[in-house]
Amino acid sequence: MNGELDIVGIGNAIVDVLSHEDDAFILAQDLRKGGMTLIDAERVDTLYAAMRPGIEVSGGSCANTIVSAASFGADVAYIGKVRDDALGDTFAHDIRAAGVLFETAPAVDGPGTARCLVVVSPDGQRTMSTYLGACVELGKEDIDERLVARAKVAYLEGYLWDPPRAKEAMRLAIAAAHGAGRQVALTLSDTFCVVRHRDEFRALVENDVDILFANEDEVRALYEVDSLDEALAKVRGRCAVVAVTRGEHGSLVSADGSTFLKVSAEPVEKVVDTTGAGDSYAAGFLYGFTHGLDLPTCGRLGSIAAAEIISHVGSRPLVSLSDLAKPELDAVS
Amino acid sequence: MNGELDIVGIGNAIVDVLSHEDDAFILAQDLRKGGMTLIDAERVDTLYAAMRPGIEVSGGSCANTIVSAASFGADVAYIGKVRDDALGDTFAHDIRAAGVLFETAPAVDGPGTARCLVVVSPDGQRTMSTYLGACVELGKEDIDERLVARAKVAYLEGYLWDPPRAKEAMRLAIAAAHGAGRQVALTLSDTFCVVRHRDEFRALVENDVDILFANEDEVRALYEVDSLDEALAKVRGRCAVVAVTRGEHGSLVSADGSTFLKVSAEPVEKVVDTTGAGDSYAAGFLYGFTHGLDLPTCGRLGSIAAAEIISHVGSRPLVSLSDLAKPELDAVS
Repeated sequence: MNGELDIVGIGNAIVDVLSHEDDAFILAQDLRKGGMTLIDAERVDTLYAAMRPGIEVSGGSCANTIVSAASFGADVAYIGKVRDDALGDTFAHDIRAAGVLFETAPAVDGPGTARCLVVVSPDGQRTMSTYLGACVELGKEDIDERLVARAKVAYLEGYLWDPPRAKEAMRLAIAAAHGAGRQVALTLSDTFCVVRHRDEFRALVENDVDILFANEDEVRALYEVDSLDEALAKVRGRCAVVAVTRGEHGSLVSADGSTFLKVSAEPVEKVVDTTGAGDSYAAGFLYGFTHGLDLPTCGRLGSIAAAEIISHVGSRPLVSLSDLAKPELDAVS
Repeated sequence: MNGELDIVGIGNAIVDVLSHEDDAFILAQDLRKGGMTLIDAERVDTLYAAMRPGIEVSGGSCANTIVSAASFGADVAYIGKVRDDALGDTFAHDIRAAGVLFETAPAVDGPGTARCLVVVSPDGQRTMSTYLGACVELGKEDIDERLVARAKVAYLEGYLWDPPRAKEAMRLAIAAAHGAGRQVALTLSDTFCVVRHRDEFRALVENDVDILFANEDEVRALYEVDSLDEALAKVRGRCAVVAVTRGEHGSLVSADGSTFLKVSAEPVEKVVDTTGAGDSYAAGFLYGFTHGLDLPTCGRLGSIAAAEIISHVGSRPLVSLSDLAKPELDAVS
């Protein structure tokens, strides 16, 4: 129980509530189609009341990454805050059942477990409205510094800069990781999240982050530039490793300020739902990284994981990513 | 809000938790494959802990029927007990979002909302373990007699004879329905449920029930006979209407002691999951019955609803049953 871990993830612990709605619903509810919007307790009640019957499934960006990393065979832990309610039990059950060490104490009062209301459109796009609920209770006291010190990489999600007390907790986690000679990874999460926290994210990337994950929109938003090339020039070398995902165009990876290498996407027969593609890319990449594989292989493992996730509804893998990646891993061993 | 209703359903309000497991899991957990077993709070915790990550979706036999009846366009209400917890909110949201009037006050203390742990096998069979939770709190005080009096049919599920106080509540509902000149329908629910309550069910069918739903195993269990013909001879005429479902062989319907008429099943391209077939059959049948249609048409509407449910995973319709049944309804109008 006290051995070395590959990755410890820290994120907003969220249960997704999915329902299918037409575009008229998106309009009537004034939602930003395809985006993620933070909503308050009152809004979550009215929006949920307007939604059709749904299904509930554990989510959360970082939690999805950690579950995918576990599916690769990585030794992983997760830190995130739920309430001691039924949705919190569901979240905890699902992440533990995926093989993840999850020991964060649930909140015993205050708001309930976070929910993300996911509207699935006829064209397969997802529009997300997140009520952070118990996530706002995440604080320094939830960071088990010894646990963080045990993991080769501490993986943080940008969304954590939304709840008020999590920032402090992230500072403590970064200090615990670096104090133990470990590395810190960050995903920028979402373009609007970057806009909300641009200055802090720039400083983080500059000073604290060793491995940065972003898609092309997020990295452009971070440096307020229009072209990807400009954004790449700005971010290159700011942290040890930078991985920029580009959807069907694969990803670009750079280490120690080197020029970006192109990594191809994994072909997919039919793209069903792209939600979670970035989360699973980070999982594959970090599995490779924590197992000493070269950068292009890390990127390829990311591509393989993303291809699995986008070929079905839902942001957690339906098959063993370790099995899926075997040919790639056999080729490099 | 005070107009006539077609159907009021009374049942155990349950949220299903589904996960895919292999047959070794069924063996290791000592489950009865394909059956429904009642489990206690301790067992639900240990079984859930052993299950893989799952999805949550509203269920409950009678609730599924009422939701399907709403999809036919029937005016329907539901009475059932949840706790004021997140799963209870989910149940209430989903049934209301389907157009069902649901006003039963949630329990504010005691056990949480009922859960049914559903193990889905590689061959598509479902093995159910039900923790009744807050359902045991359903009592006479939850029966809104005026609501029952407003509905042409009060539809009860046999599973209600499992929680201790519900029996009394059912007696009150039956009296309220009959006192208002309404009819009472009962489904026998499950063979093992019949075995648990055989004497009471026989007396109910004899004295209180106007419309009986059962599958062939259940009706044989009720009269402890081996052959379907014997069972049919025993049940025929005991209540005004009897409908016996026979899977791919359709159903047999009888009114006022007449010989049973054969109703064909609706062809299905691929049977994916037969769970909920009986629930949806009752919905179609009761839609027809409360709209003054003849008995064979009631049966056909049942067949159409059952065919929709068994062609996908999940026990509530994915498309409008009213649209599906339009050709059948146009033919008789």
